[in-house]
Amino acid sequence: MKVYFDNAATTAIDKDVLEAMLPYLQEHFGNPSTQYSFGRDTRAAVEDARKTIAQLIHAQPSEIIFTSGGTEANNMAIKGCVHYLGVQRIITSPIEHHCVEHSVDFCRDILKVETQHVKVDQNGKMDLEDLENLLKSSDKKTLVTLMHANNEIGTVLDIKKVGELCQQYKALFHSDTVQTFAHYPINVQEINVDFISASAHKFHGPKGIGFLYMRKQSKVQSHIHGGGQERGLRAGTENVYGIVGMAAAAKKAYQNLEADKAYISSIKNYFKTQLLQHCPGVDFNGDTDENSLFTVLNVSFPPNDKSALLLFMLDMEGVCCSGGSACGSGASTGSHVIRALNKDENRVSIRFSFSKFNTKEDVDFAIEKIKKVLN
Amino acid sequence: MKVYFDNAATTAIDKDVLEAMLPYLQEHFGNPSTQYSFGRDTRAAVEDARKTIAQLIHAQPSEIIFTSGGTEANNMAIKGCVHYLGVQRIITSPIEHHCVEHSVDFCRDILKVETQHVKVDQNGKMDLEDLENLLKSSDKKTLVTLMHANNEIGTVLDIKKVGELCQQYKALFHSDTVQTFAHYPINVQEINVDFISASAHKFHGPKGIGFLYMRKQSKVQSHIHGGGQERGLRAGTENVYGIVGMAAAAKKAYQNLEADKAYISSIKNYFKTQLLQHCPGVDFNGDTDENSLFTVLNVSFPPNDKSALLLFMLDMEGVCCSGGSACGSGASTGSHVIRALNKDENRVSIRFSFSKFNTKEDVDFAIEKIKKVLN
Repeated sequence: MKVYFDNAATTAIDKDVLEAMLPYLQEHFGNPSTQYSFGRDTRAAVEDARKTIAQLIHAQPSEIIFTSGGTEANNMAIKGCVHYLGVQRIITSPIEHHCVEHSVDFCRDILKVETQHVKVDQNGKMDLEDLENLLKSSDKKTLVTLMHANNEIGTVLDIKKVGELCQQYKALFHSDTVQTFAHYPINVQEINVDFISASAHKFHGPKGIGFLYMRKQSKVQSHIHGGGQERGLRAGTENVYGIVGMAAAAKKAYQNLEADKAYISSIKNYFKTQLLQHCPGVDFNGDTDENSLFTVLNVSFPPNDKSALLLFMLDMEGVCCSGGSACGSGASTGSHVIRALNKDENRVSIRFSFSKFNTKEDVDFAIEKIKKVLN
Repeated sequence: MKVYFDNAATTAIDKDVLEAMLPYLQEHFGNPSTQYSFGRDTRAAVEDARKTIAQLIHAQPSEIIFTSGGTEANNMAIKGCVHYLGVQRIITSPIEHHCVEHSVDFCRDILKVETQHVKVDQNGKMDLEDLENLLKSSDKKTLVTLMHANNEIGTVLDIKKVGELCQQYKALFHSDTVQTFAHYPINVQEINVDFISASAHKFHGPKGIGFLYMRKQSKVQSHIHGGGQERGLRAGTENVYGIVGMAAAAKKAYQNLEADKAYISSIKNYFKTQLLQHCPGVDFNGDTDENSLFTVLNVSFPPNDKSALLLFMLDMEGVCCSGGSACGSGASTGSHVIRALNKDENRVSIRFSFSKFNTKEDVDFAIEKIKKVLN
């Protein structure tokens, strides 16, 4: 038996999603940018997908730009604000995903933009008073980029409140919503947000495809230049099956949003209860109340001569989980998120993340293995 | 019956390629950046694909960076040379693909780099004497970007000679090889080229995936920042099935390189002969001798009251062909390539492009329809 508890890294493609993709991997192969009938089929599929996604977040289709994933979407928004919208200052946090952090670094180091960091508390909660003070402190055209929910510890931002602050101080607002889109309802009409991003493989869609929502009043130009695809905003032949698969995955996720949330929350809570019962000294990183992703539980294990090898040994026993973000797991420096929270460095943090395909039996299996490995 | 003669825009996925991809759209879904066994399977698949492609062009695996396609690869090389390698001047041509042209425009307009254009003759042949004079004329760190073969008219560049000139004058050399990789053998050890690019869907692989070859002595850093994927050079969760599909498509193409070339050339030549026989006044754009892509025939039709609607009417009759690049076909301004060749503006140019899936019967059908539409 294998238990896959790393759904924040990537999820399995839903069978219905693959089903929707297959015709576009076979007979419907035309280039959507061509004028003839072969191309019209695929163009219609791309535009249907755009409409589907736009409707889910209450945006206009023209505000949805397909990208190769969440990473590209976040790069496009952040660098685009500097290149095209005159942004001279970026306010971010120390616990953003690397794709936001390193895009901001690029803007600072190569494009010579000022950067500032909002304070976060030990649970990864943003200090919104500090944010307001930063916003107040300068007249420079500013972009605020703060993620909707942290991918490692699950802490959720009050995105509506941040949007209001940005509006008040005339800052642009980008939020990395890769962990929340298609898990939580997001209505861009109710949040003052200029840019949000998503990645299909985080909600049972395919890898290699995502989107950027850009509010029509604050559109950046291309990050990838070339042909006129995506209304001239993202060049390159469209990844048609990816786009179709993403829309199918989003649609299915939204149809079951509340039911999936209830089910996955029950798995997470059962796991948490079992851990507390069976693993003395266990603790959790991040908010563990309702301001936390229902898909993520970041567990802090007490120091133990086995704990350094915990991840490796759990893998040997058939439990897939993660030391942090998959995008950062190649690095030997540990998680920058956990480091930013100033936690006890002797404890070992492991992220368990859940999907609709997990069961209580998975939890029981994982708990058995954790007990075995720790003793 | 439908005849698909637009294979330079995109090709159908080969059945064997889809076969190779399917396991990675199903059970092998792990994130290749994770440390556990699920991820190790997919990481191995990604690294196998990298080795396969590297071997085909005689490069090292570490010199191959997977991207979302040829457009991104070309953007990465061109902008990266300015951001990271100190390039202050770019020499290009007026008949590059839009993704090169507009990346160069971005470097000129936003990054304030000098740009110059090599002269081309009426067949799209680069004036290499002019190139040498340009190279000589300045000490600025220079990038030369000239495509290996033109996607609209098929004219092939003497890439080896250009490489020698770049070496002599210490310029970096990037060549867009999207229309030639996996159609012609390319050996980067024999050409002094720093960057070449490819897009899988041009050789019966999937859309949304491509690669950039970067010579190890002249590596640019990320165009898309974030996680440590692709040795820190291209962030974002890997499009595993795309990568696997591209390698499978490249491998199959290389196994049949000579046979496919002979077969497709025979289709092109038969089409050309039939056109000359049945369509009085017909002419061709670009080199039509051996310095031309065997996959592309750009036909110039004499002025006729039907010719403006030729493309549309051929589509109605079941013949898919194109007015130029698919990437440019949304634009109403016509082809920038044909314009640059200073051809008679009253003639209508149509690109027919061929693959191994075309037959002589396709040609006969198309010729019948062209005759019907013109008369």
